[in-house]
Amino acid sequence: MPQPELLEHFPNPYPDRPYEIFMTCPEFTSLCPIGGVETDAAELALLKGGAPDFATINITYIPAAACVELKSLKLYLWSFRNDGIFYERVVNRILDDLVGAVQPRFLQVSGDFNIRGGIKSVITATHGARP
Amino acid sequence: MPQPELLEHFPNPYPDRPYEIFMTCPEFTSLCPIGGVETDAAELALLKGGAPDFATINITYIPAAACVELKSLKLYLWSFRNDGIFYERVVNRILDDLVGAVQPRFLQVSGDFNIRGGIKSVITATHGARP
Amino acid sequence: MPQPELLEHFPNPYPDRPYEIFMTCPEFTSLCPIGGVETDAAELALLKGGAPDFATINITYIPAAACVELKSLKLYLWSFRNDGIFYERVVNRILDDLVGAVQPRFLQVSGDFNIRGGIKSVITATHGARP
Amino acid sequence: MPQPELLEHFPNPYPDRPYEIFMTCPEFTSLCPIGGVETDAAELALLKGGAPDFATINITYIPAAACVELKSLKLYLWSFRNDGIFYERVVNRILDDLVGAVQPRFLQVSGDFNIRGGIKSVITATHGARP
Amino acid sequence: MPQPELLEHFPNPYPDRPYEIFMTCPEFTSLCPIGGVETDAAELALLKGGAPDFATINITYIPAAACVELKSLKLYLWSFRNDGIFYERVVNRILDDLVGAVQPRFLQVSGDFNIRGGIKSVITATHGARP
Amino acid sequence: MPQPELLEHFPNPYPDRPYEIFMTCPEFTSLCPIGGVETDAAELALLKGGAPDFATINITYIPAAACVELKSLKLYLWSFRNDGIFYERVVNRILDDLVGAVQPRFLQVSGDFNIRGGIKSVITATHGARP
Amino acid sequence: MPQPELLEHFPNPYPDRPYEIFMTCPEFTSLCPIGGVETDAAELALLKGGAPDFATINITYIPAAACVELKSLKLYLWSFRNDGIFYERVVNRILDDLVGAVQPRFLQVSGDFNIRGGIKSVITATHGARP
Amino acid sequence: MPQPELLEHFPNPYPDRPYEIFMTCPEFTSLCPIGGVETDAAELALLKGGAPDFATINITYIPAAACVELKSLKLYLWSFRNDGIFYERVVNRILDDLVGAVQPRFLQVSGDFNIRGGIKSVITATHGARP
Amino acid sequence: MPQPELLEHFPNPYPDRPYEIFMTCPEFTSLCPIGGVETDAAELALLKGGAPDFATINITYIPAAACVELKSLKLYLWSFRNDGIFYERVVNRILDDLVGAVQPRFLQVSGDFNIRGGIKSVITATHGARP
Amino acid sequence: MPQPELLEHFPNPYPDRPYEIFMTCPEFTSLCPIGGVETDAAELALLKGGAPDFATINITYIPAAACVELKSLKLYLWSFRNDGIFYERVVNRILDDLVGAVQPRFLQVSGDFNIRGGIKSVITATHGARP
Repeated sequence: MPQPELLEHFPNPYPDRPYEIFMTCPEFTSLCPIGGVETDAAELALLKGGAPDFATINITYIPAAACVELKSLKLYLWSFRNDGIFYERVVNRILDDLVGAVQPRFLQVSGDFNIRGGIKSVITATHGARP
Repeated sequence: MPQPELLEHFPNPYPDRPYEIFMTCPEFTSLCPIGGVETDAAELALLKGGAPDFATINITYIPAAACVELKSLKLYLWSFRNDGIFYERVVNRILDDLVGAVQPRFLQVSGDFNIRGGIKSVITATHGARP
Repeated sequence: MPQPELLEHFPNPYPDRPYEIFMTCPEFTSLCPIGGVETDAAELALLKGGAPDFATINITYIPAAACVELKSLKLYLWSFRNDGIFYERVVNRILDDLVGAVQPRFLQVSGDFNIRGGIKSVITATHGARP
Repeated sequence: MPQPELLEHFPNPYPDRPYEIFMTCPEFTSLCPIGGVETDAAELALLKGGAPDFATINITYIPAAACVELKSLKLYLWSFRNDGIFYERVVNRILDDLVGAVQPRFLQVSGDFNIRGGIKSVITATHGARP
Repeated sequence: MPQPELLEHFPNPYPDRPYEIFMTCPEFTSLCPIGGVETDAAELALLKGGAPDFATINITYIPAAACVELKSLKLYLWSFRNDGIFYERVVNRILDDLVGAVQPRFLQVSGDFNIRGGIKSVITATHGARP
Repeated sequence: MPQPELLEHFPNPYPDRPYEIFMTCPEFTSLCPIGGVETDAAELALLKGGAPDFATINITYIPAAACVELKSLKLYLWSFRNDGIFYERVVNRILDDLVGAVQPRFLQVSGDFNIRGGIKSVITATHGARP
Repeated sequence: MPQPELLEHFPNPYPDRPYEIFMTCPEFTSLCPIGGVETDAAELALLKGGAPDFATINITYIPAAACVELKSLKLYLWSFRNDGIFYERVVNRILDDLVGAVQPRFLQVSGDFNIRGGIKSVITATHGARP
Repeated sequence: MPQPELLEHFPNPYPDRPYEIFMTCPEFTSLCPIGGVETDAAELALLKGGAPDFATINITYIPAAACVELKSLKLYLWSFRNDGIFYERVVNRILDDLVGAVQPRFLQVSGDFNIRGGIKSVITATHGARP
Repeated sequence: MPQPELLEHFPNPYPDRPYEIFMTCPEFTSLCPIGGVETDAAELALLKGGAPDFATINITYIPAAACVELKSLKLYLWSFRNDGIFYERVVNRILDDLVGAVQPRFLQVSGDFNIRGGIKSVITATHGARP
Repeated sequence: MPQPELLEHFPNPYPDRPYEIFMTCPEFTSLCPIGGVETDAAELALLKGGAPDFATINITYIPAAACVELKSLKLYLWSFRNDGIFYERVVNRILDDLVGAVQPRFLQVSGDFNIRGGIKSVITATHGARP
């Protein structure tokens, strides 16, 4: 189960300047839902044929009062490792969890998933408007 | 014959947020029409000189109530394999079939066809306006 | 001599939708004019030192009632092979000939010429406005 | 069914010099066998879930008395389009058919197949020794 | 725990010809051992800080009587997903398991691991001699 | 400690024309703060585990009366070498120091930091509006 | 000394159509000023340590009545070879000289200079507004 | 018709040292033979459908007493422009003509022809042995 | 001063199999010696103009009884950060220190240093013979 | 005129180990001889049409007692800037001058010259045998 409580933040050292932070994590992995049903029973999922998914997660945001702590973001992304979850939910869930954690002026999450069945998918969701 | 009835969809889990989905399929193949006449008599076409065409199909859309089911999209694209069909029709037909299947807020189909006679073609058609 | 009469067209199968067609031909060749004078006396030109020029011709257009027939475009581009002609005229001439042939909503021709004397040139001309 | 009878040849114009010919065809496609059983019942295969395979076929050879006619090679490779056949057999079969057709001094066939299930395969088989 | 019993094989269709098979899997993942101790207590490892490792596994072999079944190889590689294991052991273990499964004439395994602490590692182990 | 007093400038030779200067320095290095505390006690930091950070610093500006002297910029960037400092501060600090030194019409600093913990960061801050 | 008198032009064959011409010269070289003083005493400069600079000069323009003659542009760019001159002046000087020679509707010069002291510079100046 | 009489040479300035010269010409063009019959009736060939071929010609040699004059090589390669000639003959003919002209210690010609009918060809012929 | 005492090792888990380990560290930095004299007085060196050097260090080895511990290698490479040292010594010193630490069957160190004064250097030293 | 007297050397710090040094200089420039006659009358050459040549010079050597001093190599390569000299002589001359300066165990010089008249040249000369 994604664990948003792992996300930590620190005070933005330049809160008055709307600068942009881009982070890319090429090592995201989760599991495919089994029979179209999402699950977080990890070992179970893998054994029953819930194939691993791999993605690069790209995050762009303009901080307001707080910045995402980098190491905690890494731990949060690891928490998807053994969940059976759809692509659309991965991206929108990360968006919601990050917005909840740091209340940014703007935030965009893009998940670039490895090819499956000869088709590659990229899902992009946005919170707020880029100035 | 393209088989739009193969296309399946599932409810958009985040229907209120206009997020974007991009899918690319580098393994599209159909046949060239024979003597300028389109046909779906597959074996016939190949034997009579209807040369195979190859393309990458890129699809970008913003879902409304429904999302395209990925495996069904793959099967739908396979259904062009033995048809004799022009480039322009391939792209516009996929656009129409996908719009019919999921009624998106916005949808764009681009077909990037391999070089023929020393010329490469890319056809791009759009439904609705990108926000 | 460029032969616009070689250009053929066929009815646009989707005339109501303003979709875009991009074609790239990396195998264009013509000759350099001799002593700054353009000519179409092919063998003559080559023997007198009219050096071959090589270019990639990129064409983007939005068809109205008619589409350019791909094979006829190839033959038309071949008809420049033994002419002595300036870069600027190559690009504007192709633009004029294509506009004459299919009366598109929009058309752009770009000629990307190989390096000569340590300098590379790209000429781009446009008919109509891209929506 | 692969049709080796499509392969044509012409006399090697320089039979005394052991020169090398490399040909690459990035547009090879066949079908995956259904349930592990190879078949040439094309439409049947595709409908039952025999997924399309895509590969680049690379051929290197040193001709003896005869050279492979390029257009006939293309038609021969097309003849795999609707067969259900394993990767290993594709490559070894092309090797055997080409050796049968032109009796070269040396011939190597390499099939570079698109990723399936997250794994990419390249199979390489050789006839004779490269000098 | 790696599960070599998942590996399946099928009879080599061309056992008399020493041809080569290369497979590359860019989606390998395992966990870093905790405190330098290897473990297969998956959830435990991840929670205690056993960071995920990512690698591309490249396998080249010349089959004797049997070939590795591709889907079973995928499942076997998935079985490392939640183990805490060193790079050196990953590569040598895969080598041993594959040699045990198909008794090839030659086999080489190379693990190309993602950068950690600013250093990237590639480990390569070989069974038998390449002809 | 970053030493802005190292920055030198010279009169803009074309002060009336708002032209743009882009400089990229792929060799920036500083240290990670120890225990989340920034420091400039260099040797101390490295010994206690303040790991080195590496970045490419990209600077784009439109000069007003003065231009940044290139060699002095190099020396200024070197002055971060043994400081423990956060990414966000590196970029905003360089922005502030350069604005202080040459009062440009527009200035943007982007720090593209090497991957750490499987995540790459790019921070971008801007002074003034690009025309 | 840059020699603008070398620049020649010819009548624009399509003066009524605002088409664009891009030229790139990857072989520009000049010398670094000695002790911050610009000079055109070539041999002197090189002997005293005025190090060679190398750049790619990119020029984009929309011709009005006249086009730049390509060979004369080459000779003009060669005339900087043995001058000691700053980057900023190189780019603005070429802009002024070309505007003086052909009075274009729009002209942009960009100088992309090789890395010096670990820093790369790109200077871009513009005359008129791109439509 | 290829014109080997255009090839000129000059005395090798370092005849005692077996050094290597590599030349690559990415701008070779000839015509496809009509109906499988080679011809040098240029205009005729093009009009009757002898399609243009394009290749990069790579030449590597170790000179003995004489070196190939670069400009004359260019003119010689131009002399194939309007001939209908097979790939195999292009490469072997250039090899024979160059060996005849400069009697090198070693010479290799490789013709890398653009894709035709979805297949790319590279022909390589050699005179003498590379030390 | 390089600190070889930082290098740690662990027992090779497969001591009987001569497998190969490649490690690449793209983040090596040291200082240029001042006035041609090597020094380890860090701050001093940087202030007096001992410019930073940057390199990628590539290490390939075949372990005997012991393997290099990855984190200790990272710390060892960090220990060059503030030394003034020549390229040749960097590479040979790392070779000697690693050979001293793990007594490998074979070891090669290659230092690929960033461009300085328009020249790039790569130094490669080897201990033992690669099988 | 090339000035070999500019080349300086320093004692090889590891004279007993035959390690390899590779240096690449992408910024070499000289002039083309006028009318086939080599000259060192710089300004004269450029004015009379001796066009600039550009090359990347690659040098690989195994030092014996002495190493080439990097800055002096740079100055030596600059000394060709205004000479009219053939490609073959550039490469063999640098080889001879470096061998004269440091008496290496092995030395190879390769000059990779920019395209002229649509043809690119690479000349490679060697002193001694690579172990």
